[in-house]
Amino acid sequence: MIMSRSEAPPPEGTAVTGNLHDRPHDRLQDGLPDRPLDRLQDRLLAGLPAEAVLTDPDVTASYANDMASFCEAGAPAVVVLPRTVEQVQHVMRTATELRVPVVPQGARTGLSGGANAADDCIVLSLTKMDRILEINPVDRIAVVEPGVINATLSRAVNEHGLYYPPDPSSWEMCTIGGNIGTASGGLCCVKYGVTAEYVLGLDVVLADGRLMSTGRRTAKGVAGYDLTRLFVGSEGSLGIVVRAILALRPQPPQQLVLAAEFASASAACDAVCRIMEGGHVPSLLELMDRTTVKAVNDLAHMGLPETTEALLLAAFDTPDPAADLAAIGALCEAAGATQVVPADDAAESELLLQARRLSLTALEAVKGTTMIDDVCVPRSKLGEFLDGVAKIADDVDLTIGVVAHAGDGNTHPTVCFDASDEDESRRARESFDQIMALGLDLGGTITGEHGVGLLKKEWLARELGPVSLEMQRGIKQVFDPLGILNPGKVF
Amino acid sequence: MIMSRSEAPPPEGTAVTGNLHDRPHDRLQDGLPDRPLDRLQDRLLAGLPAEAVLTDPDVTASYANDMASFCEAGAPAVVVLPRTVEQVQHVMRTATELRVPVVPQGARTGLSGGANAADDCIVLSLTKMDRILEINPVDRIAVVEPGVINATLSRAVNEHGLYYPPDPSSWEMCTIGGNIGTASGGLCCVKYGVTAEYVLGLDVVLADGRLMSTGRRTAKGVAGYDLTRLFVGSEGSLGIVVRAILALRPQPPQQLVLAAEFASASAACDAVCRIMEGGHVPSLLELMDRTTVKAVNDLAHMGLPETTEALLLAAFDTPDPAADLAAIGALCEAAGATQVVPADDAAESELLLQARRLSLTALEAVKGTTMIDDVCVPRSKLGEFLDGVAKIADDVDLTIGVVAHAGDGNTHPTVCFDASDEDESRRARESFDQIMALGLDLGGTITGEHGVGLLKKEWLARELGPVSLEMQRGIKQVFDPLGILNPGKVF
Repeated sequence: MIMSRSEAPPPEGTAVTGNLHDRPHDRLQDGLPDRPLDRLQDRLLAGLPAEAVLTDPDVTASYANDMASFCEAGAPAVVVLPRTVEQVQHVMRTATELRVPVVPQGARTGLSGGANAADDCIVLSLTKMDRILEINPVDRIAVVEPGVINATLSRAVNEHGLYYPPDPSSWEMCTIGGNIGTASGGLCCVKYGVTAEYVLGLDVVLADGRLMSTGRRTAKGVAGYDLTRLFVGSEGSLGIVVRAILALRPQPPQQLVLAAEFASASAACDAVCRIMEGGHVPSLLELMDRTTVKAVNDLAHMGLPETTEALLLAAFDTPDPAADLAAIGALCEAAGATQVVPADDAAESELLLQARRLSLTALEAVKGTTMIDDVCVPRSKLGEFLDGVAKIADDVDLTIGVVAHAGDGNTHPTVCFDASDEDESRRARESFDQIMALGLDLGGTITGEHGVGLLKKEWLARELGPVSLEMQRGIKQVFDPLGILNPGKVF
Repeated sequence: MIMSRSEAPPPEGTAVTGNLHDRPHDRLQDGLPDRPLDRLQDRLLAGLPAEAVLTDPDVTASYANDMASFCEAGAPAVVVLPRTVEQVQHVMRTATELRVPVVPQGARTGLSGGANAADDCIVLSLTKMDRILEINPVDRIAVVEPGVINATLSRAVNEHGLYYPPDPSSWEMCTIGGNIGTASGGLCCVKYGVTAEYVLGLDVVLADGRLMSTGRRTAKGVAGYDLTRLFVGSEGSLGIVVRAILALRPQPPQQLVLAAEFASASAACDAVCRIMEGGHVPSLLELMDRTTVKAVNDLAHMGLPETTEALLLAAFDTPDPAADLAAIGALCEAAGATQVVPADDAAESELLLQARRLSLTALEAVKGTTMIDDVCVPRSKLGEFLDGVAKIADDVDLTIGVVAHAGDGNTHPTVCFDASDEDESRRARESFDQIMALGLDLGGTITGEHGVGLLKKEWLARELGPVSLEMQRGIKQVFDPLGILNPGKVF
């Protein structure tokens, strides 16, 4: 349910200025235009070309939302599309001077409302800063601008025999800057870790327009506090990333995938535990429940086995993946797998991965709308968690499909509902919250990889506790004393 | 050159209180003892057992220093050895109330003076909090107190088929808390990364005694700013780590080592570049120069080849290490290696590693005293850097042995000098600084793994620049508004 501007109630406490479009004329000062919007536009145009400053409300409205459900979005005053660091600095200096909130955006594929516009804000889209500045195979680094698409970078480094692992499902669309903002995960994390582990250094434009470099281009470095890592996952609330130094790995061999069917989700989770306890290092370990499998078949006629309660996909990119798959196939059978089918080759493996990547899209088609949760629990608690989610689905009488990065305990219980039905919508939101509560009870986190944004900000305090929250707000204050950077998000 | 209390000039600007031992009696207040030291001791004893509060100056003086050269150390007012989180909270509440600086310490194996006492401080030794609280093979985590010795943890997790990679050379002595404080590296980093990558969550006692939890025990998690990573490498300046959740990996196969001899350091560095560019992932890639090799032979009669200018040690812990070693042996030969000798077995491999681990001790024996630098450069610049270090050694007319985590570009140029010779000491310090300047010129960092402490604090601003330094100081202010945590260090 993506609310349009007219449907959405006005966001509270997010706008630093009033409504620039509709506000009566201000008193004329220092010869500048007297309407705040004109004044803002005028100042922006002093450092940006005309085509980089969009003010047509029909156009700016199209930048209002990311892909999250149930998140309010305001009407931007202006959308800017800078191409250089200096232009970003100009935008931030202008925003500081005029006290206008700034919402940084990548490709707006986020799932927590973190990139949603605030009323009368500057939307700062980094999509035009999309150059790969360097790929260095000896130092195993890439230097990129924030607007580079994840898949573009992945393919570019592949040509040098290198690998940039983080692979969110939106990898064909999402930007590296967005990945850094939300500390994105993906399917490969079970072996290769998340975005945070691949960001060595950053250039950041601060709220007041000053440029700051963090980190390094060396493999190691411990000079001062780790500001790089502080920015990763900060959801645009501390500064604007304008350049990133990323670590790369050698390209691993092509992975081979195995599919195992289970009569219950808890049996599949038992297999996950046996695999990890057994010291195996799969390059992928994903779970799709019956609802998800059926949804994918309905959407794309993939021929997945619909009678199974849980389908586990495992892969290895080792020198002898078939041998590794045989070993974990045996563990799956010991955990009660009813069927274990290793892919014959890379093409069959890719088909299985495609099915997995279609999951969320397929679940959306079930009832028209979804709310995608992102709870991560210790993997030893995965079975208990999924049983709890099934009970919640029963209680609210809604379909909740579960797809999970099972090897990481990172789950996406996806509530399917009809957004035009008020009661269903209420129950969807209710179950969404119950799932987070369950995750916290089991020692998990409310968000494994999607971020807090608007969607989960009420829940952040429950996870962090008051002392941590106070410290986090203190840090926000250091970097953004005027509160103009992505206001109303995270906290 | 570890300065004793009597030799060291008084540290400047570090003590929040005056000299507690010698200060004349304060005005009697609220019935408490009127001498500040008695008052401090009295307050500490209200929450700590008598044996955990040491005030005998002969005893407390033995806690004044870590292992760094050229770093001032003050005389502690008291050394406390808490065994529980509550006791640490009591210490910090007392320190806040009485405005007494606190210097946290692990095993004091640090090499930057970061654990050196300030005059009249509380030395807070975490060595008695040394329990391993949990080892979980399914979740692949360990939960530990900060005083656990690195080697103790390593061996304990090995028994579960698990591996805690970070392995500083001091691993038989150093504590996990100290490793977290300095974000320690080690020999395995080239494949497995540094301490920071293995810290999932922390319990931290803040300056005012409040307890804060950071991070998670899940594989992934992005709720709020990454305070865990902020604490890793903060050198005791933000809070006291009292518990850590650490990530573990499956125990890899035993590694097999190869030794390659080169007629010049730059040829060895060329080999390092070819190995990394070739997509290899060695579990170890170390360099010892001629000075170091000779020093090790002199100390331990290892029979290393003394005619070579640079000895490269490479290892693999893959399923077929001999094949991998053969591949990089060929690359070494292509880079001009005069001799390539793979170890026959694990025992021979371990001997080579022992030689490497003895390097710093052996270099100390050359002239009695060493200054160990810790510059990390992009590995593509390693040859240029080592040539520059050789030139600096010539210029100052001193022996500078170089041992390096070559695969990471992390070098330890080690200046050997006679500390009783004033001119040699001056030239040693001069060359130490020139080496850092060279590292920064080549795009490197002043510290790859040892930290800033006292030794490099004047250099931090040169690396970070004024904007980053301002932000870092702002963060320090959030966590430690009274400036009582390890004052005078880092900044």
